[in-house]
Amino acid sequence: MKIEICFSPALYSYYTSKKEDKIIIIVDILRASTSICTAFNNGANSIIPVATIHEAKEYKSKGYLVGAERNVKRCRFADFGNSPLEYTSEKVKDKDIVLTTTYCTKAIKKASKDQSTMIIGSFSNITAVVNYCVEKKKDVLIVCAGWNNRFNIEDTIFCGALTKKLVIKGVHAANSDSSQAVLALWRNAEPDMWSYISRSEHIKRLEANGLEDSIAYCLTEDTAAIVPVYDKETGSLIIDR
Amino acid sequence: MKIEICFSPALYSYYTSKKEDKIIIIVDILRASTSICTAFNNGANSIIPVATIHEAKEYKSKGYLVGAERNVKRCRFADFGNSPLEYTSEKVKDKDIVLTTTYCTKAIKKASKDQSTMIIGSFSNITAVVNYCVEKKKDVLIVCAGWNNRFNIEDTIFCGALTKKLVIKGVHAANSDSSQAVLALWRNAEPDMWSYISRSEHIKRLEANGLEDSIAYCLTEDTAAIVPVYDKETGSLIIDR
Repeated sequence: MKIEICFSPALYSYYTSKKEDKIIIIVDILRASTSICTAFNNGANSIIPVATIHEAKEYKSKGYLVGAERNVKRCRFADFGNSPLEYTSEKVKDKDIVLTTTYCTKAIKKASKDQSTMIIGSFSNITAVVNYCVEKKKDVLIVCAGWNNRFNIEDTIFCGALTKKLVIKGVHAANSDSSQAVLALWRNAEPDMWSYISRSEHIKRLEANGLEDSIAYCLTEDTAAIVPVYDKETGSLIIDR
Repeated sequence: MKIEICFSPALYSYYTSKKEDKIIIIVDILRASTSICTAFNNGANSIIPVATIHEAKEYKSKGYLVGAERNVKRCRFADFGNSPLEYTSEKVKDKDIVLTTTYCTKAIKKASKDQSTMIIGSFSNITAVVNYCVEKKKDVLIVCAGWNNRFNIEDTIFCGALTKKLVIKGVHAANSDSSQAVLALWRNAEPDMWSYISRSEHIKRLEANGLEDSIAYCLTEDTAAIVPVYDKETGSLIIDR
């Protein structure tokens, strides 16, 4: 089984076709995909990804809890921003949450039209994602949500960590250019991930806004033993049990 | 001065704006950017990049020498394909050559609309490119032509080699996510580039078509001490003297 990495949502159409049946893993390490995993781990019932602030406000007016972020900041009308630390069990348990973020929810919407199964990946659920992919025995496409469709280090490093774990399991192979590149980068980053990631453009963006409190958590493996899966019927993320 | 890498022509608009004045380096190591450098090194007067086979045929009917490649193969009507070994001084000296390739000339056309200076880079002219960028003291954007807008190893590795040489000169810094990533990949690839590149998707494509004869040449540094520059007035590549 193949592993490929799509480094920008803008390249999505070059890595997939509507007829293919892959596992699409949406990744936005800092911070949306980590927040989604955390919310589910803390008991959220479902997360409804929406692309626009307008849609998020409509849901809010119907009584939903809403997470909304634009350019790293929480939107004023929202119950949560984009920090995983906000999605506590007190707030999210058994709740359906609507989420819009600057880039991650747009990537989710883009991939939602395909045949493939879409799941959410982060360091927080990396082992659960590996086990899911091994069990399903399908080609894997990891999609980096990134920032304004540009290449970013933190999502790429995660792709390397995930690819390494998948290859060890023996069902998937890293023989695409993109999977070989992320494996090499991960070999380089793994011994000192923190100093590696601390030079990234997005960390500087978070620090400039005083939002660095969740970075260490976002880089921690296996705090959530769950896999959020996109349910095409309801248009929401739910837990694969 | 900044160094950034755009891993696909499809991401070009996210890395530049019409008002910026950068140096855009178009890269297609296997094999178009290497062929362009070789043709100039062997005395070609100019290279007119065109996006379509239709345009190339029109030039051919006017008496131009034409290089034309689609999906690694030379087009039947053309004088050259996409192998640098075809662009010998006997054939190209003092000639104006029209060139269309599957992806590289499209990337050139895309970047040709901007304010920035566009040049062509390959291992064959890497030192000349470094000296050009150091002298101009402008931000650098390296654009990988790639294959069907996908990430590829050989262009990426070249970006790493070029970035390393630029950083050593001290005018440019690698503090973007993309430049840090290609530097790390180059550290990994440099000790044994051949085995690194031999696993790439495009090498397999060339080998399947019996076109591997120029690969070693394409990976050789400094066979051409020239910098092809795009001349906006004439719409052709010429040599910066």
